[in-house]
Amino acid sequence: MIENKIILEKSTQVKDILKSSGIDCWITFTRESQVNGDPVLDYILGSHVTWPSAFIFTAKGESIALVGQYDVQTVTDSGVYNRIEGYISSFKEPFLKIITELKPENIALNYSRDSEICDGLTHGLYLYMSDLLALAGFQERIVSAVPVVRALIEIKTVEEMKYIQMAVDVTEEIFRIAADSVHDSTTEFDIARTMQTEVDRRKLEFAWEMKTCPSVFTGPDTAEAHYIPTSRMIEPGHLFSMDFGVKVSGYCSDIQRTYYAVAPGERSVPQDVQRAFDIIVTAIESARRTIRPGITGEEVDRVARDLIVTNGYAEFPAGLGHQVGRYAHDGTALLGPRWEKYGIKPTLKLAAGMVFTIEPRVSVPGHGIVTIEEMVVITDQGARFLSTPQKEIRVVSLQSN
Amino acid sequence: MIENKIILEKSTQVKDILKSSGIDCWITFTRESQVNGDPVLDYILGSHVTWPSAFIFTAKGESIALVGQYDVQTVTDSGVYNRIEGYISSFKEPFLKIITELKPENIALNYSRDSEICDGLTHGLYLYMSDLLALAGFQERIVSAVPVVRALIEIKTVEEMKYIQMAVDVTEEIFRIAADSVHDSTTEFDIARTMQTEVDRRKLEFAWEMKTCPSVFTGPDTAEAHYIPTSRMIEPGHLFSMDFGVKVSGYCSDIQRTYYAVAPGERSVPQDVQRAFDIIVTAIESARRTIRPGITGEEVDRVARDLIVTNGYAEFPAGLGHQVGRYAHDGTALLGPRWEKYGIKPTLKLAAGMVFTIEPRVSVPGHGIVTIEEMVVITDQGARFLSTPQKEIRVVSLQSN
Repeated sequence: MIENKIILEKSTQVKDILKSSGIDCWITFTRESQVNGDPVLDYILGSHVTWPSAFIFTAKGESIALVGQYDVQTVTDSGVYNRIEGYISSFKEPFLKIITELKPENIALNYSRDSEICDGLTHGLYLYMSDLLALAGFQERIVSAVPVVRALIEIKTVEEMKYIQMAVDVTEEIFRIAADSVHDSTTEFDIARTMQTEVDRRKLEFAWEMKTCPSVFTGPDTAEAHYIPTSRMIEPGHLFSMDFGVKVSGYCSDIQRTYYAVAPGERSVPQDVQRAFDIIVTAIESARRTIRPGITGEEVDRVARDLIVTNGYAEFPAGLGHQVGRYAHDGTALLGPRWEKYGIKPTLKLAAGMVFTIEPRVSVPGHGIVTIEEMVVITDQGARFLSTPQKEIRVVSLQSN
Repeated sequence: MIENKIILEKSTQVKDILKSSGIDCWITFTRESQVNGDPVLDYILGSHVTWPSAFIFTAKGESIALVGQYDVQTVTDSGVYNRIEGYISSFKEPFLKIITELKPENIALNYSRDSEICDGLTHGLYLYMSDLLALAGFQERIVSAVPVVRALIEIKTVEEMKYIQMAVDVTEEIFRIAADSVHDSTTEFDIARTMQTEVDRRKLEFAWEMKTCPSVFTGPDTAEAHYIPTSRMIEPGHLFSMDFGVKVSGYCSDIQRTYYAVAPGERSVPQDVQRAFDIIVTAIESARRTIRPGITGEEVDRVARDLIVTNGYAEFPAGLGHQVGRYAHDGTALLGPRWEKYGIKPTLKLAAGMVFTIEPRVSVPGHGIVTIEEMVVITDQGARFLSTPQKEIRVVSLQSN
């Protein structure tokens, strides 16, 4: 769970976010959050709740929690709410009383067609809330809370950046240990185990589900992404890469590095591999230099995508990069093409304080895939690397163990 | 994640469940399931997906997965789907093609006002799916999938019962170790640490979030439930209890036991404590004997509630019991009163194969709370204990350590 310091920092921002988004009242409505929780709860409570619970913030600065009686103590401990009501049998009556008192001009709920992180309200709870607001005469005032949730989650605070940087640093350290562990009969599974042992040893969490954290890819005809490491062995002439991240105090890293395996004594990287690697490095650097507040992710994606296609490679079948936060895939704005599946994400403007990956990839026939994933933070001056960018292909000699 | 054996067992039941529920086509629609997943995914895939993904089952026996290209391998590995399509840029086109081919009479989606476990579809994804079905001319055919999800999740298979029983057994073992560890300066926090160490030692997971697993309550004026253990020390004359559970292969236990602390040399339990304890034991046994397939949870709750009130105690401010499965609070049918917050849950009929807790509680002024939570499974013959029911109050002597 998130540090209480960050929760207090975030929740005190809400009033200003509501004002600048023109939202009068924002309601996070959830229940049994261990089954089906709203990801926003991490930022405004930091604990789970059991029964139907409303967390209400207003542009006037009120913060009201209406929760089941047994959850009152936990909500009180968070220090976030200046009014806390517990109920035993009925959510409906006390909620109607509160909302009728507030008489909000508009009421923002957490739903979004395009953004999962802004879509924590289930459809059943939407129907429930919508009926209650109808009883109060406010049903027509429901709007989406996307602007509120985006501002809250996407713009990182100093404290959040501290943990993201720690996650990046330890991830790079574990990549070095993993690369050093490779010998003449190392499998994808061995590399995964080495990296996971280092995570356990440091008592950290994985940035995504352990069975694909890391994903490990070696040689030609490998799975393309998000796949479980296999017993495939690294052989001379193989490109191999890992996609890996950890969580530090709930904040993620997400990094990829590419290596080239040679037989003992060999040192050279084939020209086609080197060329692909150089294009990827250039694509990342070009994208990074393009990023600035106010530009869209679509424009950034296009720079890298065009460069790769112009150089004769197939375009990568994915977006160029995503935001990183409490989830490895976080936020709403995306560095990606305007594909139907991405909805409005690539058309949203980037802003200072957002953290993105940049992760183009190309295939090199007969060798495998070159894939590097760096992490950057956007500042008023542009994008700054959080990771130490991979500029050289690391050659790993398959010595016998 | 759930065992593949259980997933195959569950997913092959879907065809019959659809037929008997009068559902022609059931769609689980989800995305970024690590952020905001549908709990049903555990039963029909056992992995996470990234992009908008549809898992479609029909009463004719088709099982179709439409997922992002990078998720195809994982879905293939599950062995559940007889047709798998991967897409790169657009979910919309292939989905429309599939649904137009199927031409279902009705289309069940995972939403429910009352049941969180049947409410895995977010409102944003509902809007997205609803628009797609409108394009295909099927928008009017949307129905709730509650009957499908209930049958799938609530009725436990032999394999699921095996893990639940294992979870119950190890929980009781850890309760014994915890009770033996109590001495004259033991705090709530010490007990929690003892129990959590035993979980770690066995490499098990907690049944709910670790910070309240266990909850520990000691003496009068304690928090009532779901609260973090404190530095409060157990003193002679205190009732103390723990609410605790573990997960074995993804399946939970959820048990409470009550103890009475005496000074060294003392042995007796005050009459008021003993009387309250006996009423709780009787209430549990009366409820258990009332349970049978076809009865509602409201009727079962009333038996225990009336008995407690008739004996002069305040009624417990909660339902009598909930289902247990992959979550400590699972299923939809509930042993509880018809309070607004529970919606239709207490009015649903119980069925063989459901697993419930029975957990009444009363306060004893000056001593604390008596609270026992047993677990039962419903069979055609009635309810059978899964836990070893606590029939005697355990007296713990606070020897110096």
